[in-house]
Amino acid sequence: MFSKVLVANRGEIAVRIIRSLRELGIKTVAIYSTADRESLHVQLADEAVCVGTARAQDSYLNAKNILEAALGTGAQAIHPGFGFLSENAEFATMCEECGITFIGPQASVIDLMGNKEHAREQMKKSGVPVIPGSDDYITNVNDAVEVANKIGYPILLKAAAGGGGKGIRRINDHNQMRQIFSEAQNEARLSFNDDRMYLEKIMENVKHIEVQVFRDNFGNAVFFPERDCSIQRNKQKLIEESPCVLVNEQERKTLGQITMRAINVINYHNTGTIEFLMDKDHHFYFMEMNTRIQVEHTVTEMVTGIDLVKAQVIVAANEPLPFTQQDIQVHGHAIECRINAENPKQNFMPVTGTINYLYLPVGNLGMRIDTAIYPGSKITPYYDSMIAKVIALGQDRQEAIEKIKRLLNEMVIMGVTTNQNFHLAILNNPKFLAGTASTTFLEDSFLPQWKKGLTA
Amino acid sequence: MFSKVLVANRGEIAVRIIRSLRELGIKTVAIYSTADRESLHVQLADEAVCVGTARAQDSYLNAKNILEAALGTGAQAIHPGFGFLSENAEFATMCEECGITFIGPQASVIDLMGNKEHAREQMKKSGVPVIPGSDDYITNVNDAVEVANKIGYPILLKAAAGGGGKGIRRINDHNQMRQIFSEAQNEARLSFNDDRMYLEKIMENVKHIEVQVFRDNFGNAVFFPERDCSIQRNKQKLIEESPCVLVNEQERKTLGQITMRAINVINYHNTGTIEFLMDKDHHFYFMEMNTRIQVEHTVTEMVTGIDLVKAQVIVAANEPLPFTQQDIQVHGHAIECRINAENPKQNFMPVTGTINYLYLPVGNLGMRIDTAIYPGSKITPYYDSMIAKVIALGQDRQEAIEKIKRLLNEMVIMGVTTNQNFHLAILNNPKFLAGTASTTFLEDSFLPQWKKGLTA
Repeated sequence: MFSKVLVANRGEIAVRIIRSLRELGIKTVAIYSTADRESLHVQLADEAVCVGTARAQDSYLNAKNILEAALGTGAQAIHPGFGFLSENAEFATMCEECGITFIGPQASVIDLMGNKEHAREQMKKSGVPVIPGSDDYITNVNDAVEVANKIGYPILLKAAAGGGGKGIRRINDHNQMRQIFSEAQNEARLSFNDDRMYLEKIMENVKHIEVQVFRDNFGNAVFFPERDCSIQRNKQKLIEESPCVLVNEQERKTLGQITMRAINVINYHNTGTIEFLMDKDHHFYFMEMNTRIQVEHTVTEMVTGIDLVKAQVIVAANEPLPFTQQDIQVHGHAIECRINAENPKQNFMPVTGTINYLYLPVGNLGMRIDTAIYPGSKITPYYDSMIAKVIALGQDRQEAIEKIKRLLNEMVIMGVTTNQNFHLAILNNPKFLAGTASTTFLEDSFLPQWKKGLTA
Repeated sequence: MFSKVLVANRGEIAVRIIRSLRELGIKTVAIYSTADRESLHVQLADEAVCVGTARAQDSYLNAKNILEAALGTGAQAIHPGFGFLSENAEFATMCEECGITFIGPQASVIDLMGNKEHAREQMKKSGVPVIPGSDDYITNVNDAVEVANKIGYPILLKAAAGGGGKGIRRINDHNQMRQIFSEAQNEARLSFNDDRMYLEKIMENVKHIEVQVFRDNFGNAVFFPERDCSIQRNKQKLIEESPCVLVNEQERKTLGQITMRAINVINYHNTGTIEFLMDKDHHFYFMEMNTRIQVEHTVTEMVTGIDLVKAQVIVAANEPLPFTQQDIQVHGHAIECRINAENPKQNFMPVTGTINYLYLPVGNLGMRIDTAIYPGSKITPYYDSMIAKVIALGQDRQEAIEKIKRLLNEMVIMGVTTNQNFHLAILNNPKFLAGTASTTFLEDSFLPQWKKGLTA
């Protein structure tokens, strides 16, 4: 086992990782930017090294300085957390070259899954259903209509060399396809000097369902109960739950079989999450794989009682997985609300300030608040606006919702505006309560109503 | 189900109960003394009624004012918490007479178990092993020697009418008995005008093991995994755990059978805890029964995932128990440290003051801190000195200990001295770590060493 690990991150995830390392008896090294000098992760770690100025590019993304900090302090491994360098294959390679263990999968696997097209092909090869689309590029309208009939409308027509929205069209039926194909192809040719097009099915009224997996260096692999992360704004998850009330035991097993096959084929090491869209007929379609711990791993920890960061460290130290599939049982239902320093009434604009009063309701069964804020701490404009994760575990979804509402009602954060009350409004919405909200619920249905309420 | 419940308590347990009531959708009424005007339980409840001045006798023990508060606010039930009126049969009767549900067992059962001798006889009748002693009073030395030979030495010789230590002797063998019996009997006669004596085996090197039970009004009964509460000072529990590492699965079942029989015979309603001493041969002896929720119910909640206060409310509302014996599984190991506002270096003298800084380490898996303190709250001299309960749940005992040590190391309470560091010293002691510490460990073994360390 490692005796010292560097945590290449900041905020609540750095704090969370340091705590698990401490419980494993491992010394910790924090890194920080000049803006984070007084941050909680710096105070909690055994050692702390400044790696650059406030701008992430200069500090938390500064691979060279971070590796120097690891080598200088004698850390044997680096935990990248999420964001920053956590999915950077080049950084993982640099760690390897320095003789430092990168706590995550192999660089080659990060690289493979980081490329959306390669990942899609790889998954298809492994028998994982992907979002239906054209397998080859299409250059004439007749082929487009033929393929589209197979996939089913609505369809997204895209330029192969796409970017910036150029050459992209939504197509609702074959008449539209015949009308619009040439126009979009012309736009693609003019923009990219490349007129190859492809088609992808538009998935509507779908849920975001994801499955976290774990695999050690000896081929032992397990999957965790699925998470429902459909409550999103601007493609950012806001509320996550586990399990998904719409997924039954058989579907859970099927998801498990699919994901196990997928990670065994690529000889995956450590943890990762495979994200799916689930349509109204409960068909699952691969979207992408995150090759790191995620923000919402907490709800999985709460329902299973397993510390996933500890397991990451153990597996990275070349030890076998400390649990089997049998050990992974669902005990109740967990929900997480991401608390952001932002103003929902001003289009969710991020806010900065100093926490001048803080009350975290820490008692009773089945609660957890992961945060790096404390009375007097500063929220700066340099990093992500998420400042806390409030998590509740109940015997069932209803109890979890009652509990998280109570936690949000009791919690007091003064000094910065947050989305705390916005969360409470969502938690009281009938569609949310029914558990049937899709990925577009928040923006298409909830937000317009909520904004009306503001002006009423 | 009740729509409004009055919580007849203060501090962390009042806060803890209010939170569970809120999650059940029940309105809450707090009571408070003039000294507790700004207390957290008053702030969290939907309504709050002042029931008297600071002295507990005038407020939290003021049955008449509390009942008036319940009637005046329309509360249908009273949760007494622990301490104060929680084991007061007269108060339970008064509630009944006012048409208010007392959340606890029947007044007659509180009365029965509140009388040590009656409780012992009742348990013996139900086949529960009790601490060996003379069944009848003894008036001459020959009978004393005969009975003592059956029980086994060492033995406590006590005056039937005893009190204030008069007529009490420790007897190590039959020679001592012949020497000392008459002297003690004379002392008893002179002190109480009653020369009847009795004998009780002195249990040495024993563990305090207790089993919480639950029984609804329809006869459904369950028991919970045992708690080990052997770490005590001045007969006050300081650290509690569940399960006890020395108790095996078969012994757990036997304890369950014994306790189920005991509570079925007396037609027990709601929750209670039967306390045993366990000797080195793992024989269990009944000590007493607490007919209320206990401070340490939290560790049971953590290892089972069951909210015991919610269950109390449900059962009191004449609904069936919301779980079966099958639902009660042990998931890991939980430990609790009671944080007192006291100065261990000055013979644990209680201290008072204002909390002027507070940092509670609230993140990560398997932690819980039940407390009513907040930045600015006042610790007054009027009530119990316990100000917080820090609880950790691990996959096993070792992980639970690592976690609770981390929590105690991170927690910052400024403004009053606490026993936080004293706990850390115990948690690092080899005897404690081995799990074999008996009820006298702290005072006979640990404290003398610890005091030496202070002066070294």
